[in-house]
This record gives sequence, C-alpha cells and structure tokens, in this order.
Amino acid sequence: MCHPNLVALAVLLCSTLLVNGGKILVFPVDGSHWINMNIIIAELHSRGHEVTVVRPNDTWYIKSESPHYKTITINSSAGIDEERFGAFVMETLTMRRQGASLWTRFSMEYDLMTHFYQMHVKVLEMVEGMFEDTKLMQSLHDAKYDLVLTDPAFGAGVLMAHRLGLPLVFNVRWTIQGEGHFAIAPSPLSYIPIPGSELTDKMTFIQRVQNMLYFFFLTLHIWYVTEPNYKPFVHRHFGSDVHYMELFQSADIWLMRNDFTFEFPRPTMPNVVYMSGFQCKPSKPLSKELEDFVQSSGEHGVIVMTLGTLVEELPEDIAEDFAAAFAELPQKVIWRHKGKRPSTLGNNTRILDWLPQNDLLGHPKTRVFVAHGGTNGIQEAIYHGVPLVGLPLMFDQADNLFRMNAKGVAKVLDIATVNKENFLEALKEVLYQPSYREKMKELSSIQRDQPMKPLDRAMFWIEFVMRHKGAAHLRTESYKMSIIQYHSIDVTAFLLAVILLVFTIFVSAFRFLLHKLFYRNKVKKE
Amino acid sequence: MCHPNLVALAVLLCSTLLVNGGKILVFPVDGSHWINMNIIIAELHSRGHEVTVVRPNDTWYIKSESPHYKTITINSSAGIDEERFGAFVMETLTMRRQGASLWTRFSMEYDLMTHFYQMHVKVLEMVEGMFEDTKLMQSLHDAKYDLVLTDPAFGAGVLMAHRLGLPLVFNVRWTIQGEGHFAIAPSPLSYIPIPGSELTDKMTFIQRVQNMLYFFFLTLHIWYVTEPNYKPFVHRHFGSDVHYMELFQSADIWLMRNDFTFEFPRPTMPNVVYMSGFQCKPSKPLSKELEDFVQSSGEHGVIVMTLGTLVEELPEDIAEDFAAAFAELPQKVIWRHKGKRPSTLGNNTRILDWLPQNDLLGHPKTRVFVAHGGTNGIQEAIYHGVPLVGLPLMFDQADNLFRMNAKGVAKVLDIATVNKENFLEALKEVLYQPSYREKMKELSSIQRDQPMKPLDRAMFWIEFVMRHKGAAHLRTESYKMSIIQYHSIDVTAFLLAVILLVFTIFVSAFRFLLHKLFYRNKVKKE
Repeated sequence: MCHPNLVALAVLLCSTLLVNGGKILVFPVDGSHWINMNIIIAELHSRGHEVTVVRPNDTWYIKSESPHYKTITINSSAGIDEERFGAFVMETLTMRRQGASLWTRFSMEYDLMTHFYQMHVKVLEMVEGMFEDTKLMQSLHDAKYDLVLTDPAFGAGVLMAHRLGLPLVFNVRWTIQGEGHFAIAPSPLSYIPIPGSELTDKMTFIQRVQNMLYFFFLTLHIWYVTEPNYKPFVHRHFGSDVHYMELFQSADIWLMRNDFTFEFPRPTMPNVVYMSGFQCKPSKPLSKELEDFVQSSGEHGVIVMTLGTLVEELPEDIAEDFAAAFAELPQKVIWRHKGKRPSTLGNNTRILDWLPQNDLLGHPKTRVFVAHGGTNGIQEAIYHGVPLVGLPLMFDQADNLFRMNAKGVAKVLDIATVNKENFLEALKEVLYQPSYREKMKELSSIQRDQPMKPLDRAMFWIEFVMRHKGAAHLRTESYKMSIIQYHSIDVTAFLLAVILLVFTIFVSAFRFLLHKLFYRNKVKKE
Repeated sequence: MCHPNLVALAVLLCSTLLVNGGKILVFPVDGSHWINMNIIIAELHSRGHEVTVVRPNDTWYIKSESPHYKTITINSSAGIDEERFGAFVMETLTMRRQGASLWTRFSMEYDLMTHFYQMHVKVLEMVEGMFEDTKLMQSLHDAKYDLVLTDPAFGAGVLMAHRLGLPLVFNVRWTIQGEGHFAIAPSPLSYIPIPGSELTDKMTFIQRVQNMLYFFFLTLHIWYVTEPNYKPFVHRHFGSDVHYMELFQSADIWLMRNDFTFEFPRPTMPNVVYMSGFQCKPSKPLSKELEDFVQSSGEHGVIVMTLGTLVEELPEDIAEDFAAAFAELPQKVIWRHKGKRPSTLGNNTRILDWLPQNDLLGHPKTRVFVAHGGTNGIQEAIYHGVPLVGLPLMFDQADNLFRMNAKGVAKVLDIATVNKENFLEALKEVLYQPSYREKMKELSSIQRDQPMKPLDRAMFWIEFVMRHKGAAHLRTESYKMSIIQYHSIDVTAFLLAVILLVFTIFVSAFRFLLHKLFYRNKVKKE
C-alpha cells in the first residue's frame, strides 16, 4: 500500500498539472525563426506544458528529437533547402560586390520573391495534405490541444487553428501582410515608416510621398501572395465568405518580437504583447584561452565580429580589407570567419569557427559589435549595451540596422562599397565617439527596466489564453468590416450627399423665390 | 561617537532614499477624482516618495493636512462648490423625474457645460496667478521636482509641467479633448463609439452615421472650451507657435483609469498604462451587527444599494417605489439612504447613512449591486464579481453602465421612468437569470488575472519616468503634425494631382496624334 503522504503528493502534483499543464500545438517557421520559437518552447516545457511541433520532413533547423517537445513530421517540401539558400546568399553577396546593374539586382529581388512565393505554395500543399489525412486530423482533434502557437510568416498554423477551432497565439514580427503591426494596428503613413523604406518617424513631405508609394507596393505584394494561393485555399476549405485576413487577424495574442527600444513609437493594440529581448540572458565566463586573449587587450578593449550563420565565407577581397583594417587598430579582435585565412591578418585578430556571442557581448572589455543586423544579434547588443558597426546583407537586416542608426547606436556600411578605409573609419567612429556607447548604454538600461521579464510576459499571456480559452476582451473584431466601412468612407459619402442635397434644395428654393419675386415685379411693371 | 553599524545603516537608508525617494508635484481634480488620486498619492508616499499637492483654498475634498502629502494652497475659486453642486444634482433629478421638456433638458445640459466652462476659466486664473507669483515660482523651481502628476480633466498640471520643464504623468480618463484615448490614439469611428453615444463596437450603418455626428459635436465642444481660454493663455505665456494640445499630448505616461474588462477593445499607444481596478482591494469582515443581518438572508442573499455621495436624498416618490419593490423580495437589502424613511419600507430592508461598500460587495452573500454607475463603484463590482442594476444620474454614469449592459452584467433603468414595477422586474432579472452573475464572475476573473497588480503597474511607470527623466521612447511626436499632414491629406492630393497630370498629358498626346493622323488623311484625301 502507498504511504498517505505519497498519495497526497501525487494528488498535489496532478492538480498542479491540471492547472499548469496545457497542450500546445506549434507551427514554426524554419531557419533563424526556429531559434526564437525553440526558446519559447523550452520555457513552456519547463513550466509543465506539453508541446507538439509540426515539421516538414525536409526541415533544415527543426530537430525531430528534443527533450522539450514531441513532433509530428509531415511528408512535405515546405522546409528551407539549406544548400540552395546558402548558394543564393553567396551569389547575392558577390553580385552586389561586383556592382551588379540595377536590372540584375532587381531580378535578384524578384528571385527572392519567387523563392518565398514557392514556399507559400509548398506550405499550403502541406496543410492541404494534413486536412485530407482523416486519420491525422482525427488524432489532432482527439489530442484536445489548448491552443495553436505559430509564427505567421506562413499561414499553416492560422489555417489549422481555424480547422480545429482552437485559440491562436502568434510569435510574430513578419507576416504575409508585412511587419506585424501593419496587419493589426492603425498605421498612419504620415509618421510610421514602411519597413525597408529606411525612413524614420519624422519625415519630410517627399519622404511621406515615398512612404505612401512603398505602401502601395507592399499592398500589391500582399495581393500577389494571397490572391492566387490563400484565397482559393480558404474558400475551398472554409467557404466563400471566409477570408484568410480575417482568420489571421482573429489571433488572440500577438507576441511581438519587438519593442520600443527597437521600433519607433507607434499605435498598437491591446492584444499585442512586446517580448523583444526574450532570448537575452546574462553572459557566462569565457574559456580560459579566450578570456586571456580578451584581457590582453588592456584598456583598448575588444571588437567582436560575426555576420551570422547564413554567411560563413566572405568574398576574398572583403576579408582581406577587413583583416587589414583590424590590423591597424590597438584593440584585440575576435572574428567568426570560415574562409581562407586573410594574408593581411594582424597579430591582434583571432579568427574562430564559432564564437560564444552572448558571453562576448556581455564581457566588460567588449567595445564594438560588427554584425549583419539580424534581430537576435541586435537585441543581444542592446541588452549588453554594445554599439554596432552594421553590414546588412539581406532581408530585414538593413532595416533593423537603420533603426539602430536612427537611435545613434550604430554606424551602417554597404557591403557593395565597403573597403579597408571606410571600414576602419566606421570602427574608429563607434570606438572613439562616446555618444555611440552612451546611447547604447541608455537603450540597454531602458530595455532592462521593465516590470516583468519579456519571456515571463510571453508565458503569462500564453497561459492566460489557456486559462480563458482565448483573449476576446483584448481583440477588436474590426477585421470583419470591409475597408470602406472601416475607414467610414460610406458614412462620409452619405453625409456629404446629405449636405449637397440640403444645399441644392436651399439654392433651388432661393432661386424659385427670386424668380417669383422678379416675375411678380415684372408682371406688376407691365 | 556613533556605532559603525548605525553609520552603515544610515548610509544604506540614504542611498535607498536617493534611489527610491522622488519628489512629485500633484495637480489633482476635486470631487470623486480626488478619491482616486489620493490612493495613488498614499501608495507613492508608502514607497518613500515626497508628494506635494497644489490645491485651491475653496476645495471641497482635498484636505490641507495629510500624513501622505504636503500642500501648496492657492487663493483661488477653482474648487468645486459643494452646495451649488448638490443643489444642481437635486434639481436635475427632480426635473428629469417630472418629465421635463426636451428644451428644459437641453438647457440643463447647457447649464452643466457652462458650469464646467467656468471651472476651466477659474483654473486658468489660478495658474495665471501662480505664474505671476515670482516667489512661488522660484520655490517650485528650487524644489527640483522629478515630475508633475496630474488629472488632465483641467489643464493646470500640463501648463505647470511645461513652465517648470518637468516630465508629465497623467492619472486620466476624461480630458478637455473627451475620453483619454481620443486625445492620443487613433480612433476609427467605424467601431469606436464616442463615449456618451451609448453605441457599441459593432454598429449598423445608421449608428455609424450617428457616431460621426457625435464626433463633430465633441470636436465643436473641444473648440468651445480651448479656443477662448487655453489658446490665448498658452500663446501669452509660451509663445504663439505653442498649442495646448501639443503640451497635453506630450505627456510621458498616461495612467488610464480604464481597461478592457470595462472598455471595448480599441487601438492604444505604447505610453498608455491601464490601471483600472487599482483602487480595488479584498473585503474586510463586516461589523457584528451587519454580518448578522447579512447572514439572516440565508440562501436568498443580499442586495446592496447606494447612489454615490452626490445623491444623498432621493425624490420621495422614487424612494417609496424602491422600498416597496424591495419589500416584495425574499432577499435582505442594505440601502444607503439619507432622506425621509419611506412608509413602504419592508422588514427585510436596512437603511444606513453610510455603508462599507467594498466589504459588502466582497461578501459571499451579496447578489446584486444597485448603483448609479460611477467608475469606482463599477470597478469594485467587477473586482468582486457582483452584477449590477444601474440607475445612472449624470456625467459618464450612463455610458459606464451601458458598457456593463453590453457585456451582459448589468440591467440599466432610467431615473425618469423608474417605478416599483420595472425596478422589481430589473432586480428579479439580475437575481434569477444566471447569465448576469456568470458573466460578471468571468469578467472578474479576467480583471484579476493580470501579470501585475494595477496599482503596482502605475507605480512602476511613475518611477520609470523618474529614473529615466521621461519615457520618450514610448511617445510618438505625431502631435507636432498638422491634421492635414497627420492624415496624409497633402500627400494624397499630391499623388492624385500627379496621376491627373499624367492622365491629361497622355490624353492630350493621344488627341494630338489622332488629330495629326486625321488631318494628314484629310489633307491626303483633299
């Protein structure tokens, strides 16, 4: 027989599980997006929730085995093709470096768009396959998940949540509708720059015109992706009165990988929860060897450089230029670089295959971070208060770095024109103009000064949705209105018509009266 | 000599004070607004901050002596005249009860507007007097306050913060520009009802037309108050390029006495902090006598009724009707009533001069709260999960109760038409239709399920502003734009003009070509 205390303990554990232990179905996005999602999943697991991840079998980053989650692997080609992607990145870099013509660059952009378009098609094929697999669908129904957690850069999670009738939580920055805010919150184009425009929240007239034109292109691009794919899919499966945009906008909570140390201040919605920096954590001690190297920098400090996991090799001429520039500085340099060892490399520069980025950024000797401008890296730089020299390569990187530049904490270079001289100049500017470091320290102190840690806040709201089966009180249903209704165009037209009518009646009456009078006088005269 | 440990303690205390102990200058609003502000002040005091309250010498509610704050008393008539106000309330009640004509009611509304208008004039006179008192202004400068905390229903705090160059925090729901959100966040009139319109966030076409008309009246009213008063004042003291609206919108943090258990979901801004329910606290045990009375209700439970502090006496006929209705119910009733004892009073009804509202609402036997719909009372009812029968009298009360009605947790009656029958019917509906209680319990559970207590959240952000000398990163500067710029009217007009020009050129060229061709043919033919 069981000891009564043990029974009590078991009951306690069970009740805790009943309260805390939810079941979560996750539709992640492959690549660097997965790194973020995985942190959230690990935290959910540590809080006693059971997480199931849906992954295509050709996925690049998403492992099938993990202590934190179970997986459902779908036969699909919706993953990211690592080799093709790597080749594309290198090709882009080389072409930009060679000063490719406007036409070549435009066709590269078009290639990238087509690449993403194809991924949307494949994702929808994957979902279609799942919908048609009655055994799978039955098992998903039977599993009684509490919610779907998804990165809505692709629509799989949104569609499945609707099919299963489950609450929906987003881990979001980019969506099919562009940057997350633009899909849900009012975004006056007069002071909210379209991401990618490299405009700020203070624009001249010409910049505001540009911003509006960018908005039209964005709208066109959304239409280009949704119209031939999501629209017929949704009509086929949910009926012709259902629109993807509606399903998407009805998400309960938007956990935004963003905040206002990063973004310009702007309107938001009650169900947007900012969790920028949720991946940041204090640094750990370096290895003995690295620590010795860092300490040997003395008062000059250390420069840390990495261009992310996508770019492992740099074109040779750039690498030579960078190495030569580093060699002229009194600082020590730690550089993640996988190509040929540059001939110009100085004694002060250590080349590594991989570097402990967070631990180096958190080291008191670190003075500058040379980075490509991925969101994770920038947020770690903010967290540790290290100013940036930016070398954006693609995607949102230029835009991210531009924001840091506007806040006075980054100097941004163009990979197409960077050389030893301007690289050295940028490094010296960020090293020796105190404003970069001071402003970054201030930004860091603001980012860290929050009532709650970003990851805890994210957890609270995921669990809130489980406790209350949604967050309807925070979510407008304005997405159910047409654009004409939403912007009160019909009401304005009606009121203008009424005013016009009243005015016309008034003028007619006046003319009629005038005519009567005039006519009477005329008659009298006659 | 001092013991070393004591010195260490003193140093510790001093450093704590340096970190925590800020200096705050408060410009409150008199009446029920002060009750809220005083709770915040007491909490600030308990956290080691030094609070100074500016009060006119004829104030009604704001005491000159308090353990929580110091005062600066200004010779002014900007307070609320208790007697005049009480008389006005009684007059209004009686007139509405007698079925006053539309004209009388309109003139009463006009009287109320004039009353508030006069208060604005007096507040500005008070601030003018302060500005001109060089000794006072010097002492305010020398005191080195960290921020101004104000209720911006009147503009004194806004103007003083600008004069002293201090960060500004609002404790706000109503402003000169109407409900707080309308003054700072985008408010699409298609789904955001104008407060007072008794519309919801789901409107028919006609309701949307109404809503837009209400918006025009509101705009007119704002103009009526600011144009002849605030505008010349600001121009006189700060220069002709400064506008009151700008000073007002530049507040760092808006502590909003509101949240989405109360308000319809809507766009908001990053520097809006919701603190609805900050005044709510668990109930304390009742007095022995009251507890016995409550317990004697058995399974039927208790009805609690109070119409707030403004209405101490009810017209005799209403009181008789209420008492008669109560007498027919099996519940026990606790009624705050100061007039003549109604002849119809039943044995089940206890009349009190004052009642411990929070302790009664938190009592498990309480079934219904009959209330006038002041924000404090409603928020306490939500906190304790007690459904409402509402009898709105004036100001925002009808609107507050309407929101509760839309959420299915209140039945609202009109004081003009209430009688024994419909009062009894309303009570029975809320008592015996389970949905009222269930929905209120749900609302209560949502209000209580927050990552942080509302009052703690308010404190965090006040202290954040002190630590960082503002909250610039959360605040847009869109208020610096003109309406034409903000709404991109100039950009739209420009783009339309360009399109028109291009179209005209195209058509002209086409006609020119056609003409040439036609003319050549004609010439050839000839």
